[in-house]
Amino acid sequence: MPRAIRLGVIGAGSATFSVGLVRDICLTESLAGSSVVLMDVDRERVETMHRFAVRYAGELGAKVSFEWTTEREAALREADFVINTAQVGGHTQVERLRAWSEARGYYRGFRLKDCLQVRMMVSVVRDMERLCPGAWLIQASNPVFEGCTAMTRATGIKVCGLCHGHTGYYEIAEVLGLDESKVKAQVAGFNHEVWLTNFEYEGRDAYPLIDEWIETKSEQYWSDYHPHYGQNQMSRAAVELYKLTGLFPIGDTPRRGGWWYHTDLETKKRWYGAPLGGFDSEIGWAMYLQELEKRVQRIHHAAHDLSVRLTHEFKPRITGEQHFPLIDALVNDNEVTLQVNVPNRGAIEGIPGNVVVELPAVCSHRSIQPLQIGKLPEVLMLTHLYPRLLEAEHVVALSLHPDERVLMRMLLDDHRTKSWEEAVRFAREIMSLPEFAEMAGDIVRPRHGFDS
Amino acid sequence: MPRAIRLGVIGAGSATFSVGLVRDICLTESLAGSSVVLMDVDRERVETMHRFAVRYAGELGAKVSFEWTTEREAALREADFVINTAQVGGHTQVERLRAWSEARGYYRGFRLKDCLQVRMMVSVVRDMERLCPGAWLIQASNPVFEGCTAMTRATGIKVCGLCHGHTGYYEIAEVLGLDESKVKAQVAGFNHEVWLTNFEYEGRDAYPLIDEWIETKSEQYWSDYHPHYGQNQMSRAAVELYKLTGLFPIGDTPRRGGWWYHTDLETKKRWYGAPLGGFDSEIGWAMYLQELEKRVQRIHHAAHDLSVRLTHEFKPRITGEQHFPLIDALVNDNEVTLQVNVPNRGAIEGIPGNVVVELPAVCSHRSIQPLQIGKLPEVLMLTHLYPRLLEAEHVVALSLHPDERVLMRMLLDDHRTKSWEEAVRFAREIMSLPEFAEMAGDIVRPRHGFDS
Repeated sequence: MPRAIRLGVIGAGSATFSVGLVRDICLTESLAGSSVVLMDVDRERVETMHRFAVRYAGELGAKVSFEWTTEREAALREADFVINTAQVGGHTQVERLRAWSEARGYYRGFRLKDCLQVRMMVSVVRDMERLCPGAWLIQASNPVFEGCTAMTRATGIKVCGLCHGHTGYYEIAEVLGLDESKVKAQVAGFNHEVWLTNFEYEGRDAYPLIDEWIETKSEQYWSDYHPHYGQNQMSRAAVELYKLTGLFPIGDTPRRGGWWYHTDLETKKRWYGAPLGGFDSEIGWAMYLQELEKRVQRIHHAAHDLSVRLTHEFKPRITGEQHFPLIDALVNDNEVTLQVNVPNRGAIEGIPGNVVVELPAVCSHRSIQPLQIGKLPEVLMLTHLYPRLLEAEHVVALSLHPDERVLMRMLLDDHRTKSWEEAVRFAREIMSLPEFAEMAGDIVRPRHGFDS
Repeated sequence: MPRAIRLGVIGAGSATFSVGLVRDICLTESLAGSSVVLMDVDRERVETMHRFAVRYAGELGAKVSFEWTTEREAALREADFVINTAQVGGHTQVERLRAWSEARGYYRGFRLKDCLQVRMMVSVVRDMERLCPGAWLIQASNPVFEGCTAMTRATGIKVCGLCHGHTGYYEIAEVLGLDESKVKAQVAGFNHEVWLTNFEYEGRDAYPLIDEWIETKSEQYWSDYHPHYGQNQMSRAAVELYKLTGLFPIGDTPRRGGWWYHTDLETKKRWYGAPLGGFDSEIGWAMYLQELEKRVQRIHHAAHDLSVRLTHEFKPRITGEQHFPLIDALVNDNEVTLQVNVPNRGAIEGIPGNVVVELPAVCSHRSIQPLQIGKLPEVLMLTHLYPRLLEAEHVVALSLHPDERVLMRMLLDDHRTKSWEEAVRFAREIMSLPEFAEMAGDIVRPRHGFDS
């Protein structure tokens, strides 16, 4: 008989995420009888989401109960599962920190926020050790790679990161004009740094089809097409990353790649298409935030307007996100292969066991069992996975044990940093920002202070 | 009874190295009866060194025989030991390549030469597999780190790299005013990236003495003192590296450190002292080459002038280099602890087993047995050893399996590279230089060519 669960959702005020979550749990019949505690520090937002959830479940007649709270402990106590979708300070803080670092010469900002996110994630699993030590933590908000690595190193809580970026290969199939139902693929690496390790069409290697497209059609595609900000999968940057590594980058992977795609807006346009310059340019990102805000407003209006039939406005369709398939597999043994982020423990050769990797895994009542990936191409390791791992180790170390020396190396490794003195000044200024006050309280500094 | 050996010396035309070698073997009585084959592609130089060696041994009455050759095979055949001190193309080539990359915006050059050196080293051990598969290869010329790592991965030849840089802690003792005979130290890491893991004075931790010197005397020292180009051990850069890592950098280590010490001559002067700007500035390096040339001339004149008594001009003193103590330990079981470069195999935690590390080892007839170093400070790993290892892996990979994609990443990781297009152009130009013709013949390029 299916077993109901108690689920805590941290950061449930995130309207877009929570709407999907409400839909999915209401539609997962084997989880009927479950109770969900929606938690957010923003009382108004979480109360709104609670209204939405209760009405939505009511319209569907789904046997799922919802509570809300602003206290994290209330969401964790006796939970079987915790989904963490929280973003410290929300987009407002991200944009404030971005503007602050842009004023210091870091176009589109220095990734300061990651450490704050990772520290928040670690504090959640530390609370779980007290309040629900046997529960699973499912990490939804970014950075999944560094966050899951830090959480699994800092505590014994069972952690799995989930992301939908690996489905990006469908976009490849679409652009290539392939019938999606005949495509098979496997994707592995680190979250937001995943690579198409296997690509088949009608049972045969389909990489030659990509090569043919690059040779005969890509230039035409790039000159005709002015992609939406979210469409980076077949960008010039993605193809160049394929040339550089031997495997095609998937999902969010081409958004990043390396400093050389991101030096200024013109360069971004060259690699990600004009006029937007991709997801992460000042134009693309502003559009994303705008659309996000519109969706949030739409959800909030609907939640408060009792004349709206929610299941008409937000159709009861499974989202395709992996959270409830994973929970259902772990709880009810509905075995399924999902794309997960868990400690490597030998699945990918050459990556230490305590680094969280993204790869397919068979999920069932037994546990999450990653498929052995083995050896990835050496050139991929050298040009992308090792450099990315080093960056991640810096973020993880700085988050778990704040140290000005590690922060200095991160700044000095940034291609935009022009001198030692600039890095010293920037490191000091960062740690005097109010956002970093708690972290600065813990920070280790060299005995004699840096020379400036 | 002591056993004589047959020793091949590759690159024996290097006058300064060979003079030391001749002195040391003539003075190592337990190796009496040994024969040495001096090999160099420069016939004149090697013949000169041969004259020098024969006369020097004659004056001392040492029972060591010397031959010379320009054929590598003749030096390897039936050798028990091979010392490789060769530098492909000599200093002339280094300076030509440096000038070439400086003209493209790389101040003091891009480290192009390393791959040529590593390929030469690997070709030597490959020849040894045919001609003297049981012999030891002792690597003297640079880069020892990348070279030894590549050689041990490419063949089964026993390899040990030697360097004298680890003795730099004596200079610390001297500047601190300590009695050298009461100092004990241990040094570990990668060659030219070694760190003072242990420092004792009169049996007690002497790091507090360094800290005190930094706090109370260093500024005075740096303002009073205008160091010789070779004196980088107590430079401002060295102290800053200590602050950044928690351990003091030793020997050649502070010469490198990070791009931020080397952006221009003024910056070099700030970190390595005025007016020279350290060993590797245009001024320091020119002085070094000048003094080197003077020593070479002096040796050549002496070798050809029969009226000179060589043992008066070049006193018969043991140099302190480790080559013959190592050989003597391996052959005659005269056990000694030396600073060696051998595959890690677990000696330093967190470094893969097939990476060559520098550390103390007990050397005897049994073999070379490194001392277990264990865990180095995490901050040292994150700020220096891991970043340096990634650079080395690029050089090793590029040398063993030339690949334009790895070369691209090396160029893109260089803080002086300003754009993707610049890297593409530079990579192409490098591989069309005559020096790289042989390497370019083997190189793998991406199927579709890079976008430029």
